[in-house]
Amino acid sequence: MAKKLSFTVADVREMAKRFSNWGRWGDDDELGTVNFITPEKTKAAAGLVRQGKILSLAIPFDKDGPQSGFAGRMNPIHYMMQDGGDVVSGAQDWIPTLRYTDDAVVMPLQCATQWDALAHIFFDGKMYNGRTPNLVHSGGAMKNSIVPLAARIATRGVFLDIPKLKGKPWLEPGEAIYPEDLDAAAASERVLVERGDIVLIRTGQMAQCRAQKSWGGYAGTADAPGLSLTCAEWIHQKEIAGYATDTWGTEVLPNETSDVLQPIHCVSLVHTGILIGEIFDLDGLAADCAADGVYEFFFVAPPLPITGAVGSPINPQAIK
Amino acid sequence: MAKKLSFTVADVREMAKRFSNWGRWGDDDELGTVNFITPEKTKAAAGLVRQGKILSLAIPFDKDGPQSGFAGRMNPIHYMMQDGGDVVSGAQDWIPTLRYTDDAVVMPLQCATQWDALAHIFFDGKMYNGRTPNLVHSGGAMKNSIVPLAARIATRGVFLDIPKLKGKPWLEPGEAIYPEDLDAAAASERVLVERGDIVLIRTGQMAQCRAQKSWGGYAGTADAPGLSLTCAEWIHQKEIAGYATDTWGTEVLPNETSDVLQPIHCVSLVHTGILIGEIFDLDGLAADCAADGVYEFFFVAPPLPITGAVGSPINPQAIK
Amino acid sequence: MAKKLSFTVADVREMAKRFSNWGRWGDDDELGTVNFITPEKTKAAAGLVRQGKILSLAIPFDKDGPQSGFAGRMNPIHYMMQDGGDVVSGAQDWIPTLRYTDDAVVMPLQCATQWDALAHIFFDGKMYNGRTPNLVHSGGAMKNSIVPLAARIATRGVFLDIPKLKGKPWLEPGEAIYPEDLDAAAASERVLVERGDIVLIRTGQMAQCRAQKSWGGYAGTADAPGLSLTCAEWIHQKEIAGYATDTWGTEVLPNETSDVLQPIHCVSLVHTGILIGEIFDLDGLAADCAADGVYEFFFVAPPLPITGAVGSPINPQAIK
Amino acid sequence: MAKKLSFTVADVREMAKRFSNWGRWGDDDELGTVNFITPEKTKAAAGLVRQGKILSLAIPFDKDGPQSGFAGRMNPIHYMMQDGGDVVSGAQDWIPTLRYTDDAVVMPLQCATQWDALAHIFFDGKMYNGRTPNLVHSGGAMKNSIVPLAARIATRGVFLDIPKLKGKPWLEPGEAIYPEDLDAAAASERVLVERGDIVLIRTGQMAQCRAQKSWGGYAGTADAPGLSLTCAEWIHQKEIAGYATDTWGTEVLPNETSDVLQPIHCVSLVHTGILIGEIFDLDGLAADCAADGVYEFFFVAPPLPITGAVGSPINPQAIK
Repeated sequence: MAKKLSFTVADVREMAKRFSNWGRWGDDDELGTVNFITPEKTKAAAGLVRQGKILSLAIPFDKDGPQSGFAGRMNPIHYMMQDGGDVVSGAQDWIPTLRYTDDAVVMPLQCATQWDALAHIFFDGKMYNGRTPNLVHSGGAMKNSIVPLAARIATRGVFLDIPKLKGKPWLEPGEAIYPEDLDAAAASERVLVERGDIVLIRTGQMAQCRAQKSWGGYAGTADAPGLSLTCAEWIHQKEIAGYATDTWGTEVLPNETSDVLQPIHCVSLVHTGILIGEIFDLDGLAADCAADGVYEFFFVAPPLPITGAVGSPINPQAIK
Repeated sequence: MAKKLSFTVADVREMAKRFSNWGRWGDDDELGTVNFITPEKTKAAAGLVRQGKILSLAIPFDKDGPQSGFAGRMNPIHYMMQDGGDVVSGAQDWIPTLRYTDDAVVMPLQCATQWDALAHIFFDGKMYNGRTPNLVHSGGAMKNSIVPLAARIATRGVFLDIPKLKGKPWLEPGEAIYPEDLDAAAASERVLVERGDIVLIRTGQMAQCRAQKSWGGYAGTADAPGLSLTCAEWIHQKEIAGYATDTWGTEVLPNETSDVLQPIHCVSLVHTGILIGEIFDLDGLAADCAADGVYEFFFVAPPLPITGAVGSPINPQAIK
Repeated sequence: MAKKLSFTVADVREMAKRFSNWGRWGDDDELGTVNFITPEKTKAAAGLVRQGKILSLAIPFDKDGPQSGFAGRMNPIHYMMQDGGDVVSGAQDWIPTLRYTDDAVVMPLQCATQWDALAHIFFDGKMYNGRTPNLVHSGGAMKNSIVPLAARIATRGVFLDIPKLKGKPWLEPGEAIYPEDLDAAAASERVLVERGDIVLIRTGQMAQCRAQKSWGGYAGTADAPGLSLTCAEWIHQKEIAGYATDTWGTEVLPNETSDVLQPIHCVSLVHTGILIGEIFDLDGLAADCAADGVYEFFFVAPPLPITGAVGSPINPQAIK
Repeated sequence: MAKKLSFTVADVREMAKRFSNWGRWGDDDELGTVNFITPEKTKAAAGLVRQGKILSLAIPFDKDGPQSGFAGRMNPIHYMMQDGGDVVSGAQDWIPTLRYTDDAVVMPLQCATQWDALAHIFFDGKMYNGRTPNLVHSGGAMKNSIVPLAARIATRGVFLDIPKLKGKPWLEPGEAIYPEDLDAAAASERVLVERGDIVLIRTGQMAQCRAQKSWGGYAGTADAPGLSLTCAEWIHQKEIAGYATDTWGTEVLPNETSDVLQPIHCVSLVHTGILIGEIFDLDGLAADCAADGVYEFFFVAPPLPITGAVGSPINPQAIK
């Protein structure tokens, strides 16, 4: 953890300008870098299914999740609307023969494994493609919601296991990942990051929580390993469709910018238009890739098309 | 609509016995016919991706959905926890530079496009694999929940368009689909239904609702087209992994059994262990398949792994 | 229903100015006319308890309520977190001997019988006492919330039964109540409206819904009987603390102002600072008052002190 | 904290039998000891309003409440459905002139200041008046719900300040209150506990939480001061209508019964039919009573009539 960088809001603004894709796919575009997922890309990615093996990258959606109430985010609340007790107690005896159970959920869309919509972040008063805050009101996001992604997220996935690269079980809280780490991981895994990929970057923080049997301040209230702001250029130049990590917010905490919270979100989500995934469970994938040596796969992770939503819970599938 | 069949609970019990898979995959099994989705099956199904085209089969998750409150099911409620108004009003001025939006949802898990878990239905006091109601209490389903399916639903999808077969825009409310209709549709589409497939069966009811600009009694309170109980044998013999329709409950309403509600659920879900999908939007798929003549595809539809859930909202992906 | 008045936004602005109490109780005031409920007033009102009879003026809080989803308001959703089924099924056998039930509710605060907070309405960019919209953000109302009323709503209640005055079971949809009707009702009931009172005004609309066994468009989507805008002066001059009706919005619908929705809310809530109650069940009270001839009582209706709330569900008590 | 008593389930059963009111007010009764609140009682209690002073005994209903998720109880979640940001952003510009805010709540009914309904507790398979668990299913409580109390809770309140009696700021966690303490407090306050009263008993635990600026394990997960099981006889003999404390569960924790959780609930709520209030904020009342020397008042605390509810959030009013 020797290296420690520091940037200002002026730097962030300069990067935002340099790495901007506003207008690149037209003024009406709401997809951002997901535009890199072309039919050709999807078709080629499906060709990576060689074993028929499916891995889920979602954590359990339940009360034992990472949220602590910070920023109003709580863990999912699951209510049974009908259950086996009703079957036994006779409450369903008005139904001819069949008996059933039913349930409901109350949850922040960002409570567990999730995509950020492009309407999730504003920087200097604008969201992706120059849109203004009035487009996201109590009725939801009129633009840049998660809905345009409903039939788009099936592409090549590439897994970069940074702790493995560094020869340790996890990165420490506050430890940054730099572009050269991403490149080194890819090289060591003999995989190339290509246009339209979704890159899954493991920090090991979730493994650390498991080892400690506590989420602690995982959900945004403690230091965390994650991407250095310098990765914003890498994200832009690689022309990837998206990336995700096994952390709450993908960026190193504390941020390298005292005057900008989550600066990669400001640069890469708002200006590059990148798809960001958070709270991915990459531990099983790490074990699997270490075992078979295959770090690429067909990656399918459709959001729920909740009208106007600025994020979506997901169950991402890595299919090898 | 000439043919009208009628069965009794005794018939249903006899079918349940004949088409039972209890014990077939061991007493601990919680997957049922999803066991037919083997790695080989998944691998072969991925080979169906020839154009790189992705279709979402989910309806919008919002207040304009089909639910009317029947059985306590309401449409999703979407709340903004932070929105553009907060950006404008200064409510986030405590945050360094970045601004954001956040949201939450309250919804029955069965409110829109969804999978039924095997814990969703009981018949004669038992759910799939002979399990008892006490296993589904207010804390959720201890067995047969949706969670075991978290990394299993990627297989070949086959689409059977019954209205197209019959040369009309939709089946009428109360009109039943028989096994010979399924076979005729498959034949006319030059597609074979095979072990491990998930079969998507279109009734056209959703198209009718669209034409009438009203859901009416779609969500279980009016007559509906759907499968005849006689399809239970077809479901069992074909060894499919699952099936779904564009209706609320997949079965013809009124049911052919005055003393058993939703008898296919009792036979096929409880005893055969079939995966059932409901409220799928198959109209876009119908148009696409009619255009390219391809009625098979890679079908990926992972549930959200909500601990103990007896169903899951999904965004099913048909990838051609 | 001969009389039909019509006003413009200019008239409403003029009334707002004339009937304004902004600054009357200081610039920091968040109580408005509830300031008229002094300790002397409360003490005197308690003296009206002569029979020890208690009437609840709340409708049942349940799924059969008046809401239809208009403006995002749905009826309360009640979930059991533990129930008798869990007792029977053994789900609580980990607890020593005791067994229990528990429940939760999801509800708009304005779904049933309720108070409007002074933060509920803005007119020409301001809420009560000249406060700006930025004070009510996604985190709730920083000013004029319901909380300052937590220990204030115990005063004299006066009941004005307009259908009784007019000799019919209910006012028709669209039928307006004028100040002279209020005065005539009071006179006929031999009761004087006094400073600090909360006046309960019955239109009979709820009785009509009951007779028709349907809420129909009660919750804001159909014509309704209610107060004429001309009552704004009466409300101001009488120096009452609040008023409530048995309707969704207290005002006659359609409003007498095509360019201002709910103009009394704009004048009387925003400028006079009046406490407004809606969806009160006044039918039982009507029968009781008709029987004993007593139209005044001790009225206690505390809001739930939900931090930042702009309204509150209540169970108002008329104690005679 | 010298005295330490210990009882077994056999003792609890014996007390349950001795202090039972089952059948006392008929087999159909759902009120229990609230029957002691007669019109005469209510009328006399209203006479205690001598100053016109109102005190709210509710804690704030918000995310900073005492719940930690234990037993699935979380603090209230408040969502804005419309807020000032929407006013500013133009999201309401379709409305003629008026602008508004709206909100919703998600909360366990037992999350903050609350009444337990008689359907809340079962002992040896029965709730109050011998009713069985099947009467409380996922659709709510068919009997003994909170609803019958909707127009009943206006009576004499008596405040017993135990820490004041003992000359300390609060009772320690685990410290029990005995019948003689209740009698001594009443004597020292020169007040008599009478039939039909609701007795508010202060332990000081909430004051301790305030002093420590943390709820800690207040909500059922740590030791707490509270009533000894020996108070069950006092509760029965005094023929009070109800009692409440400033703690999570009113009873001393750890309980004096290792084989029965919350034994007073089993004896007094289930068999005596007592109304129990929890998480009352009695600190302001303590200061007020110490100041004016008046420990009795008119007590009005109507539950929200949520159909089938087994508890209710309340804002209890002590009116002097």
